[in-house]
Amino acid sequence: MAGAAVGIVNVTGYIGVELARLLLEHPEVRLVSITGRSAAGKRLGDVFPHLAGSDLTIETELAPVDLAFVALPHGESAAAVAALLERGVRVVDVGADFRLKDVAEYEKWYRVTHPAPEYVAEAVYGLVELNREQVAGARLVASPGCYPTGAVLALAPAVKAGLVEPDIVVDSKSGVSGAGRTLTLPTHYAEANETISAYALDGHRHLPEMLQALRGLAPGTELSLTFVPHLTPMTRGILTSCYAKLKDGKVSAGERAREEVTGVYRDFYRGERFVRVAATSPQTGQTRGTNLCLVYPTVDLRTGRLIVVSCIDNLVKGGAGQAVQAMNLMLGFPEETGLKSAAVFP
Amino acid sequence: MAGAAVGIVNVTGYIGVELARLLLEHPEVRLVSITGRSAAGKRLGDVFPHLAGSDLTIETELAPVDLAFVALPHGESAAAVAALLERGVRVVDVGADFRLKDVAEYEKWYRVTHPAPEYVAEAVYGLVELNREQVAGARLVASPGCYPTGAVLALAPAVKAGLVEPDIVVDSKSGVSGAGRTLTLPTHYAEANETISAYALDGHRHLPEMLQALRGLAPGTELSLTFVPHLTPMTRGILTSCYAKLKDGKVSAGERAREEVTGVYRDFYRGERFVRVAATSPQTGQTRGTNLCLVYPTVDLRTGRLIVVSCIDNLVKGGAGQAVQAMNLMLGFPEETGLKSAAVFP
Amino acid sequence: MAGAAVGIVNVTGYIGVELARLLLEHPEVRLVSITGRSAAGKRLGDVFPHLAGSDLTIETELAPVDLAFVALPHGESAAAVAALLERGVRVVDVGADFRLKDVAEYEKWYRVTHPAPEYVAEAVYGLVELNREQVAGARLVASPGCYPTGAVLALAPAVKAGLVEPDIVVDSKSGVSGAGRTLTLPTHYAEANETISAYALDGHRHLPEMLQALRGLAPGTELSLTFVPHLTPMTRGILTSCYAKLKDGKVSAGERAREEVTGVYRDFYRGERFVRVAATSPQTGQTRGTNLCLVYPTVDLRTGRLIVVSCIDNLVKGGAGQAVQAMNLMLGFPEETGLKSAAVFP
Amino acid sequence: MAGAAVGIVNVTGYIGVELARLLLEHPEVRLVSITGRSAAGKRLGDVFPHLAGSDLTIETELAPVDLAFVALPHGESAAAVAALLERGVRVVDVGADFRLKDVAEYEKWYRVTHPAPEYVAEAVYGLVELNREQVAGARLVASPGCYPTGAVLALAPAVKAGLVEPDIVVDSKSGVSGAGRTLTLPTHYAEANETISAYALDGHRHLPEMLQALRGLAPGTELSLTFVPHLTPMTRGILTSCYAKLKDGKVSAGERAREEVTGVYRDFYRGERFVRVAATSPQTGQTRGTNLCLVYPTVDLRTGRLIVVSCIDNLVKGGAGQAVQAMNLMLGFPEETGLKSAAVFP
Repeated sequence: MAGAAVGIVNVTGYIGVELARLLLEHPEVRLVSITGRSAAGKRLGDVFPHLAGSDLTIETELAPVDLAFVALPHGESAAAVAALLERGVRVVDVGADFRLKDVAEYEKWYRVTHPAPEYVAEAVYGLVELNREQVAGARLVASPGCYPTGAVLALAPAVKAGLVEPDIVVDSKSGVSGAGRTLTLPTHYAEANETISAYALDGHRHLPEMLQALRGLAPGTELSLTFVPHLTPMTRGILTSCYAKLKDGKVSAGERAREEVTGVYRDFYRGERFVRVAATSPQTGQTRGTNLCLVYPTVDLRTGRLIVVSCIDNLVKGGAGQAVQAMNLMLGFPEETGLKSAAVFP
Repeated sequence: MAGAAVGIVNVTGYIGVELARLLLEHPEVRLVSITGRSAAGKRLGDVFPHLAGSDLTIETELAPVDLAFVALPHGESAAAVAALLERGVRVVDVGADFRLKDVAEYEKWYRVTHPAPEYVAEAVYGLVELNREQVAGARLVASPGCYPTGAVLALAPAVKAGLVEPDIVVDSKSGVSGAGRTLTLPTHYAEANETISAYALDGHRHLPEMLQALRGLAPGTELSLTFVPHLTPMTRGILTSCYAKLKDGKVSAGERAREEVTGVYRDFYRGERFVRVAATSPQTGQTRGTNLCLVYPTVDLRTGRLIVVSCIDNLVKGGAGQAVQAMNLMLGFPEETGLKSAAVFP
Repeated sequence: MAGAAVGIVNVTGYIGVELARLLLEHPEVRLVSITGRSAAGKRLGDVFPHLAGSDLTIETELAPVDLAFVALPHGESAAAVAALLERGVRVVDVGADFRLKDVAEYEKWYRVTHPAPEYVAEAVYGLVELNREQVAGARLVASPGCYPTGAVLALAPAVKAGLVEPDIVVDSKSGVSGAGRTLTLPTHYAEANETISAYALDGHRHLPEMLQALRGLAPGTELSLTFVPHLTPMTRGILTSCYAKLKDGKVSAGERAREEVTGVYRDFYRGERFVRVAATSPQTGQTRGTNLCLVYPTVDLRTGRLIVVSCIDNLVKGGAGQAVQAMNLMLGFPEETGLKSAAVFP
Repeated sequence: MAGAAVGIVNVTGYIGVELARLLLEHPEVRLVSITGRSAAGKRLGDVFPHLAGSDLTIETELAPVDLAFVALPHGESAAAVAALLERGVRVVDVGADFRLKDVAEYEKWYRVTHPAPEYVAEAVYGLVELNREQVAGARLVASPGCYPTGAVLALAPAVKAGLVEPDIVVDSKSGVSGAGRTLTLPTHYAEANETISAYALDGHRHLPEMLQALRGLAPGTELSLTFVPHLTPMTRGILTSCYAKLKDGKVSAGERAREEVTGVYRDFYRGERFVRVAATSPQTGQTRGTNLCLVYPTVDLRTGRLIVVSCIDNLVKGGAGQAVQAMNLMLGFPEETGLKSAAVFP
């Protein structure tokens, strides 16, 4: 569907504007309409000078498009998505409303009544590496949250292969852009700079999403997973460190354990364009601006514990980039179309 | 011993110069001599302009002092320490050579032959909160490493009380100053800025130190502890996140578990001047420039896992500050002398 | 007046809380009362955990004190100041309302009607290095703005000595804390990090303050001064670069010009505790957390242009610190009392 | 010359590796050979993991190519360039050896004997916006330094139009990557972070380059230009602030002066793809990763002084990007080929 017309609902957040950057440079689609509330009527390039090359104006209502990205807060995206689907528009929702299959679980974690539960069953969870075929045929894709992207890609091969005990610790470190563009004291420069903190220690909304995705890989397993995110003084990037004991007898003893685990990961991600099993401990900076997820599995030989580190750019693979990756499949383009740029390093 | 003369061997690293800052402002001692190699003959204030108020010149040999701080790299400090002890000088060694009681373990991790094993038994591990009395009477204090300080203070109350299973994950995030002042590519500004990475995944030298300290609190326990440090884009601070399952029946179910765990921590640290059990999730920035350790214990109620977060300034409580704290005890001053400053925030 | 009771009106901004830090550690005064609006009723240590050692609670009205610091926004401080003076309380106003002697000029730049013009004449401009005696005897001190502090201290010796032509460029680089604690998009972490920009190109409110102070040093001179501030990605610090052509014949030609200019500066600041004429190009980091101003004059020999670089911590010498310095004089303490700490470096 | 084979001599510095990033994504050329010294024999993707998608190996000698980029230090590039020219290879030298037309001036500033003065006359200064035609036909292009790029593009329209007096101040703020990848104490993370400083106050090597380019625009004018660079705590970007008095009568009085000056700038840069006259004060972050130069001219109406602010990414428009821009002209491609990416913001 070359030349497809696409649009963005709520372009003014960091995921929204990153979608605009990627879609304006995408060789196969035309970004024809963008909406926003406070900024309606303004030129995109005036609100975001790095996109001054575009002539788009921010509108209040989306013009007709073949496919729309919805970048609204949870509780708001569902209604917008429903309206678009009813107009026959295919949708990639980068918000949270259609990620969880269990509506009660959604309502417990997000503390809102689901505005459009009738579309939940149909929505395809857009972690392409796990759901490639379903995404390609989907009318509605629920694009994953930033933390689940890094955590699930780090753990999926081990969980699928049954390598680890179900007791898992996921310790994530996110750049401040992950908290969005809304002004808050913790994201005020002088408060966030030169300091690191753990947050959401009572439970983060991305936890049930991780559990749902991992359970899908190991049906019947009861996972006991603790997830703690940390606000890290950098703009972009999520590094996720995962810890779980290896099951007895699943891998050899000694150094060979590392090779075997790495082999499981390489097999799992063979042929993937956007997941790379790294040969050495990766850094978030190596993914800046890209749709890559770097995954590095190793074994703590003293304790028999699997350690997996993953790195993504939270706004690209953890946001706008994988939404475009899903769109590519939905519209029949090669999966990497418009997503080939290397990281801007240093 | 008011007016005691003190000195610093190798003042030119970050711990060394932080010792100089603290000792120059200390009301009860006189910093009379500092040494360094490459910078010998230069004025301290020329090498470190923030100390331009001092008239000290960096020397090659330490002048006579009552107590010396030795801030040399591992493998080098032992000989310097031995020579000082033989001259009758009391020593606080901020290096690694006397931290581990098992010389073979030291030699395995540090890959050097121990230069002065005859002093190992005598050395007192300088984590004052655990060893206050021994420190006061010591001739030689081995001041703890930065990571063990944060990790052991986070875990000690739980391990001592037998609250947790011996399977423990310690995930630490350190500012770049922790890597020292020696030039390296990973600590080159453009390489370290705006990125985070895990390192030492094959095992970090601070691991045996953590194990030794924790085993001392729970003799007979076989700890299975995985420690992963992360290089974080900020100058100072270590945040350590610790994870361990609560033993069955040790605390009540539900919300009360948190209160009970917090109670154990408050009891353990009651009266401590430099460890504060925080009421909310702390940040490293709250300890910048200070000798404080903030400890925040909580329970992941879904999994029954204890989570403890601790924050320190790696150069103060994790380095020069606790060395001065030890000196205060050794010389008979109130423990907080010269260490009362609040953090410089923001 | 040892043991004097002091208070802070509006402790919750960055200057207010930095005043609290300095006053809580001040050996000669007791901080007995602090006020704030949104945070009234809360403990200081809960709002600012780095001050958790204090038992103060934020109040709505200031308790009786001998001297008060007022840290309110312009247009609001004047009324509070007037009320305090009428109660017999001496005041250091760290806001802008009493800095300009020309009320019309104030009203033009700040776009408000001056709420208490009757106190303008009495107010002493609190740049202690220029007005030491008047400050000591003042009932009301108008503490300087952050930019004028750095710029006036950089230029004063040259202007006073008539070394330079009246055409002056002042290019300042400020850390983000200078913009305050109020949330704004330009000070949102992801917007301010890793980028630098010039602002207030139409004229900044600190310009008339600089002109007033410099004209006082060279009565009759018509200064043509351009001031451009830049928002710099760091929390604290202002570096100010000043440029002005040397008048013909005022200094020797060649290298000697530099020595002579440096001599003028050393003479001007001889005996000053908080201004240091640096021997090499200084950095803002060398002043972090301190009341120091580092001044480095040199001459561009190719063009005969004087270049002066100054560095301060905007929240200390450019804010709370010099307000305490003024207080020390007002209450008869040695000027450096409570302000002796060295910078926290790195 | 689609499909031209290109190479990079010394790929391991920041400009070298940025060239690799741009050339690997360039649609019309093939990067076939890269060299380096210490890293010879290693895969590019192992040394620079963000380029892991490439199969190139770092060699000691450059394979046959149609055009080579030389990214060697000054004093070393000239010999390499000469050898390439003699093999019939066209060259873009991103080093300093061929920028200055006056060999004596070069030798004075760079303190080396010029290794290949016979090619100086032929070299075309590669600031494409000023020398488009000569670049297109050149065999050897001397790509500009980072600071001159920002300063000359900021000043060129005003100098060409004779708007300003010849007394000019250029105050530049550069990210730390501008100092290169060689390890130094000032670029060690903990030394460069959270601090800003002026350097090269005795004169920077980029000054004669600025003067040469500006004199070319206003023959016969004797410029008195002071240039001061500042090391700024961010990885990429240069913001340059330029100050010069408007000549009497060249523009109208009052607000219209700004419009007229802006008009001069818009006319000068009309049709340029990589210089944009900004409508509001720009930020370096708006150019991150791109070949853009944002220029913002305004007038300080109080003093009649022209202020021009420019922003570039020092590694792209100030380095690798404009070198590729020059290559595009030399090989007959549209100038923007391979350089269209928008900035990665935030």
